[in-house]
Amino acid sequence: MTFGIDDLPVRDELRGKSPYGAPQLDVPVRLNTNENPYPLPEALVERIAERVRVAARDLNRYPDRDAVELRTKLAEYLTNTSGHPLDLRNVWAANGSNEVIQQLLQTFGGPGRTAIGFEPSYSMHGLIARGTGTGWISGPRHEDFTIDVSAAEQAIAEHRPDVVFVTTPNNPTGTAVPAETVLALYEAAQAAKPSMVVVDEAYIEFSHGASLLPLLDGRPNLVISRTMSKAFGAAGLRLGYLAAHPAVVDAVQLVRLPYHLSAVTQATALAALEHTDTLLKYVEQLKTERDRLVAELRAIGYEVTESDANFVQFGRFADSHATWRKILDRGVLVRDNGVPGWLRVTAGTPEENDAFLDAVREVKKEQNT
Amino acid sequence: MTFGIDDLPVRDELRGKSPYGAPQLDVPVRLNTNENPYPLPEALVERIAERVRVAARDLNRYPDRDAVELRTKLAEYLTNTSGHPLDLRNVWAANGSNEVIQQLLQTFGGPGRTAIGFEPSYSMHGLIARGTGTGWISGPRHEDFTIDVSAAEQAIAEHRPDVVFVTTPNNPTGTAVPAETVLALYEAAQAAKPSMVVVDEAYIEFSHGASLLPLLDGRPNLVISRTMSKAFGAAGLRLGYLAAHPAVVDAVQLVRLPYHLSAVTQATALAALEHTDTLLKYVEQLKTERDRLVAELRAIGYEVTESDANFVQFGRFADSHATWRKILDRGVLVRDNGVPGWLRVTAGTPEENDAFLDAVREVKKEQNT
Repeated sequence: MTFGIDDLPVRDELRGKSPYGAPQLDVPVRLNTNENPYPLPEALVERIAERVRVAARDLNRYPDRDAVELRTKLAEYLTNTSGHPLDLRNVWAANGSNEVIQQLLQTFGGPGRTAIGFEPSYSMHGLIARGTGTGWISGPRHEDFTIDVSAAEQAIAEHRPDVVFVTTPNNPTGTAVPAETVLALYEAAQAAKPSMVVVDEAYIEFSHGASLLPLLDGRPNLVISRTMSKAFGAAGLRLGYLAAHPAVVDAVQLVRLPYHLSAVTQATALAALEHTDTLLKYVEQLKTERDRLVAELRAIGYEVTESDANFVQFGRFADSHATWRKILDRGVLVRDNGVPGWLRVTAGTPEENDAFLDAVREVKKEQNT
Repeated sequence: MTFGIDDLPVRDELRGKSPYGAPQLDVPVRLNTNENPYPLPEALVERIAERVRVAARDLNRYPDRDAVELRTKLAEYLTNTSGHPLDLRNVWAANGSNEVIQQLLQTFGGPGRTAIGFEPSYSMHGLIARGTGTGWISGPRHEDFTIDVSAAEQAIAEHRPDVVFVTTPNNPTGTAVPAETVLALYEAAQAAKPSMVVVDEAYIEFSHGASLLPLLDGRPNLVISRTMSKAFGAAGLRLGYLAAHPAVVDAVQLVRLPYHLSAVTQATALAALEHTDTLLKYVEQLKTERDRLVAELRAIGYEVTESDANFVQFGRFADSHATWRKILDRGVLVRDNGVPGWLRVTAGTPEENDAFLDAVREVKKEQNT
């Protein structure tokens, strides 16, 4: 026997666990991690190289600890796209929205506290809760994957969680959450504790509806988290951010690692924000492709969950993992999120989506014969 | 009253606290945060821009989650400079050594567990312990800032900590820790629990002595942490790493945020590693300057702690903060780490060090009259 993890004095709850992450397989068509299929335009690539060159000349110095320029530009982006005025003091940024969520749980969750999410949802919420010693409560959803408001209110009243996660559009189902649902959960959470409500809008730019940013008005215990991984086509950049009352931004600074955001990350994100208009045009193309995937999957005979994201949940399968494998055998990698009966496909380029649709058409035929 | 942090449901231990960080003041000579004063050579700046340009073309995709190329090159650097053979499987990297330490505490510390450090030392160890719910024990040092081995062994036997931090060279004192001390503490920690021993070698390249990497042999509960912030002159890059038994590398992956290390960070670090020889020449210049600072400060009449780092602790002052202010009034920013009677100065360029020495000469004269 070789010496392994369980021979080390690791925390008990980590024993026997595996690291989170989709299989990284070398396959012609990868539609499994909700990446944006469009590479950054060459003008932006050049602008990134230029801004990073300037940042590299100062690389011997620590980066701006407060990322003032970046937070200012992110606030402008949010203001321009939502019509809800925000500034620097409302915005905080970190290495991916995962780190934003980790900082929120370190501040408002942690040992002796709990967080709730309505599952199936983004599984990192629960994993980051575990990583921060926050107890995790799995809340309910309706059969159609919308949030069951009265059951959710009841769960909040019963468990009195310190943090409530709402993901809209929801991952992996694609389901949008209406403003009135978030308002009801916010009220329930305040009545029970009061607690923080974190709305994860990682995919909001792909939604048919609007961002919930205007709800921040008068609600200091509400946080909206965002990412540049999806709409900005920059998953490799790892730039997540949040919008909230300035007190929340002050509070997370008590737990953030000092100088957590590198000078090259800040420079690259600033370059991408200069090209917002171009990048949002790709979002429009992806929304069209997403709607096409929904329509074609239904035409083929699959059940499809309504999607407001850049991915589509389809089913149902007696054995979703076996179907995942059959699609993979045809050169297309989709995601098995462990939701029984369902798989998730990311909207790719038209060509990638055609390849996927061809593959699932074949699989369907095979299953019907 | 405006709505502030304490009006939010933050964790009790965060109430009334301030974020960590040295004051960022606009001063001609900044010798307060142990940065390397030498900007990266222009050839390296160009290489960074080039590598980032290539990475940016794939930025719509998630980065290599396992940072295989980077960890391979870091292992080569450690092997070449220590003579102790290490490979990819022994090395893990994150956004600054702070994140490395956070991941170690999430894996081996956390709620219901404790960590010990011998203070004064790098204060982030205790702060990251707090941020991860790990109890913090402040261990003792001798009056001359070396570790009091028998008192340390006794503290370990009494408290049975899960994680033991040893910083060599120590920050803020500059004190090197001999291998036999680390071995004694490792034995004590294994006898007590067993627990993990984390040797923080952030400043080791500036030491008169050698790295403790060879101690990893046959000691799976030993971890050595490193950074590119100091010797590589890349504080703005935020690249920390560790060397340990492969099981430790596997274990921290249970708590690391997936895709925590951006593609631009990986590309920039790889470029810097290509220029290791040039960067290590700056380290030699800084060691000479550090030794000059020690000699001149003593000649002026200050007490100076032996230093193996790129900074020097000097004193003693009845009121170290008042002296800090007097030096600042002369255009030189040093660090008041809250060690009563002492201040810390970073070794800068020869010109910066001259400016600092002129300032403290004046302060000394003023105090003598």
